[in-house]
Amino acid sequence: MAPAGRESLKPFFEPKVVAIIGASNKPDKVGNTIFTNFLRADFKGEVYPVNPKHNLLFEKKCYSSVKEIPKPIDLAVIAVPASIVSKVMEDCAEKNVKAAIIISGGFKETGSEGARLEKEVTTIAKNGNVRVIGPNCLGVYNPETNVDTMFLPEEKLRRPPKGSIALLSQSGAFMGTILDWAAYEGLGVSKAVSYGNECDVDLIDLIEYLADDPHTKVIAVYVEGIEHGQKFIRVVKEATAKKPVIAIKAGRSTRGKAAVLSHTGSLAGSEVLYRMAFKQTGVVGVDDFEEMLDLSKAFALQPSATGDRVLIITDGGGAGVMAVDACEHYSLTVPELDAKLQVELKQRFPPYCSTNNPIDLTGDVDNQRYRIALEKAFLDYEGVDSVIVILLVQAPSLTVGVVDIVRDINRKSTRPIVACCMGGEYSAKVAKEVERRGVPSYPTPERAVRAIWALTKYGQWKLRKA
Amino acid sequence: MAPAGRESLKPFFEPKVVAIIGASNKPDKVGNTIFTNFLRADFKGEVYPVNPKHNLLFEKKCYSSVKEIPKPIDLAVIAVPASIVSKVMEDCAEKNVKAAIIISGGFKETGSEGARLEKEVTTIAKNGNVRVIGPNCLGVYNPETNVDTMFLPEEKLRRPPKGSIALLSQSGAFMGTILDWAAYEGLGVSKAVSYGNECDVDLIDLIEYLADDPHTKVIAVYVEGIEHGQKFIRVVKEATAKKPVIAIKAGRSTRGKAAVLSHTGSLAGSEVLYRMAFKQTGVVGVDDFEEMLDLSKAFALQPSATGDRVLIITDGGGAGVMAVDACEHYSLTVPELDAKLQVELKQRFPPYCSTNNPIDLTGDVDNQRYRIALEKAFLDYEGVDSVIVILLVQAPSLTVGVVDIVRDINRKSTRPIVACCMGGEYSAKVAKEVERRGVPSYPTPERAVRAIWALTKYGQWKLRKA
Repeated sequence: MAPAGRESLKPFFEPKVVAIIGASNKPDKVGNTIFTNFLRADFKGEVYPVNPKHNLLFEKKCYSSVKEIPKPIDLAVIAVPASIVSKVMEDCAEKNVKAAIIISGGFKETGSEGARLEKEVTTIAKNGNVRVIGPNCLGVYNPETNVDTMFLPEEKLRRPPKGSIALLSQSGAFMGTILDWAAYEGLGVSKAVSYGNECDVDLIDLIEYLADDPHTKVIAVYVEGIEHGQKFIRVVKEATAKKPVIAIKAGRSTRGKAAVLSHTGSLAGSEVLYRMAFKQTGVVGVDDFEEMLDLSKAFALQPSATGDRVLIITDGGGAGVMAVDACEHYSLTVPELDAKLQVELKQRFPPYCSTNNPIDLTGDVDNQRYRIALEKAFLDYEGVDSVIVILLVQAPSLTVGVVDIVRDINRKSTRPIVACCMGGEYSAKVAKEVERRGVPSYPTPERAVRAIWALTKYGQWKLRKA
Repeated sequence: MAPAGRESLKPFFEPKVVAIIGASNKPDKVGNTIFTNFLRADFKGEVYPVNPKHNLLFEKKCYSSVKEIPKPIDLAVIAVPASIVSKVMEDCAEKNVKAAIIISGGFKETGSEGARLEKEVTTIAKNGNVRVIGPNCLGVYNPETNVDTMFLPEEKLRRPPKGSIALLSQSGAFMGTILDWAAYEGLGVSKAVSYGNECDVDLIDLIEYLADDPHTKVIAVYVEGIEHGQKFIRVVKEATAKKPVIAIKAGRSTRGKAAVLSHTGSLAGSEVLYRMAFKQTGVVGVDDFEEMLDLSKAFALQPSATGDRVLIITDGGGAGVMAVDACEHYSLTVPELDAKLQVELKQRFPPYCSTNNPIDLTGDVDNQRYRIALEKAFLDYEGVDSVIVILLVQAPSLTVGVVDIVRDINRKSTRPIVACCMGGEYSAKVAKEVERRGVPSYPTPERAVRAIWALTKYGQWKLRKA
């Protein structure tokens, strides 16, 4: 009897023994990229190639069928033509393989004959108690165990480091893009799944699994259509009680819905329906890729906010003004600071600094002014729920040492801090240093405010649930 | 008699002879950075240091007063304490200096005594026919002539290359940030002016000047408050008849207005008033820094669109769907393609490609499919006014050679093309190659659509004017 529910998905992410069916030594073959991924990437387990055309592959004995492998198999990765997947799945069932990722395309997405084939394969798997991700997908990336079935070469798709963001996507192209982007931004990923046609394991199963995954702090999803609406709402609600879920909903517009239909054959729900579903479940809905990564980063690094009062500290008046504008746009409050606090700040700062909110330390700022502002008006002050630290590092007397001040404050605070480092190469360098110290940084005040908005929105959802 | 209007501003940008008043050899002095800017940057003219404390500066004879310089002076750059600026200005007037940039702070922005000083200096300049930019500013950057009075060192503020974007800002911090950012993005600048307190030359004068500047294709402005509303509307309307003007309006929100008041003492107009002024004048209003640079890049590289019908070509269905969603958000049309055209495309593409709009070339795309789609559905097709080319370069068979296809189409087209290269390091590299070939590229479908929206909005403004 196969394990049920959550436990049955474990072999996808933490297999001890893996078979690569369709492994190859030809560089342009999917089965080559995947097999070498497992060989190269220091996979924490055993890997067996399967291909009747070879006896040896990369100095490893190659089997003509999964059934011949002298060990129980946790995970089979299937990268063979669609026409022979049924046969391969029969072998997997006979061998009691626990889980299979079908990378191959040529199923439901190509028309009725493909749909018939997919149904056949699904029935065989079900009868044999084999859980299946796919077909028509990139499969799984788990930097913890080094499971990596993504068949795009490292040059085109850099792998992100280990981290706490889980990424889910029907679309393989989206997954490739977002993983590569995350790697570029240095964002750490806990698990990524491109799940394709969902013949067995679906989005709901994966969200349920990740909700209890100790390596995952935030779940980010790209979705074109949701089936089983009631179950979706129940499962996601349970997930958001544990950790934030961010979703891009594509196909919101009238023409977009038509495009979704021709892309995956999914029926995109109306914008109103999605909004309602997200509202009911506490999902943070986002509009684009950039926002998805921006917010994932915020949730991965910072706690949520328990209230909507934002403190803004800046050394450029204009950037402060734009942050205030953005706060109003996102219905966040920029409260005036206590008169007593302002008197205290006035004693420490030159007279031309603004001690109200936004606190403007002005262009002749030095590191010390940031420390004072952060300690007095944030750490020691109860009147705000979060802080945005704008660092225009072009200021002549400001040095990169300011990042250690931000780190110190972050360590002592239970409230969220985000930074905004705006400018060019030097600013980007400082931003990276800030993030290495646990504080997410954004290149515009607007994007920093949006991150605070998400932390606040989710914090308030949790409060309402409590 | 001094030249009037436009001609009187020329010495700020194209001076033959420049005096740096307050030049210094001490590395932490503003007068040092500015003087060495002129020495280092291959300034196309003569430069004379003025400072009574020195006889020689960097092996150049140093004068104790501007009056002693044995040549007529086009431009004096003044970087001395506020208290002696009046005296310096008297000398400039006596010497018939045509234009002066007062870098020094300590005037109107510091209170009533500063305001009195500023008025005094302004009167002296006016009586002496000296045009003035400043005080309290970074002044002028013109990569054409290598005038560079920005006193921030290159390490903190990289200078962008020569190009066709003009940048204007009251705020010095904003100017520093945006120049550094433009340099990082490789965006070329024609002229940049941080104009500070506007004691003489104001935003309106500068827009009027740049509207006729042959090196400038687009004018981008950061503004916190507009004075002389009627004149502003008249001048800007004339400017937008010649070239696009983009403006960030800070202080739109209620709390933002208060922050503006404490930042520059300007009275920020209401959002409604600004919107009306922008609508009347054809100014493209934007919300943030990123949008400002995104749209500037589009206008610098591409023609405007004469209609709102957008063609989308993609190799990832999801990205196409998101572009369609964004088009609807920006009130752009994504028209269905002619049946005849679709039949033609179907003959050239595999059956699983979508030949309607968005055209989805799918993940096994090669370069040739992009060429066919761009030729048949854009170059040879009258049914669309612009095209967004989404390149998910992770696709295994797509090579960097696709950028030359985009270049070829761009050369032959009179309608705008923008690209979207999404992903990590490799995508960023391809994006740079695309831009080097004259097509702006953005990292998300949404930002690419926003660029098309601006090109369309401005195109329709011009049509209404014609």
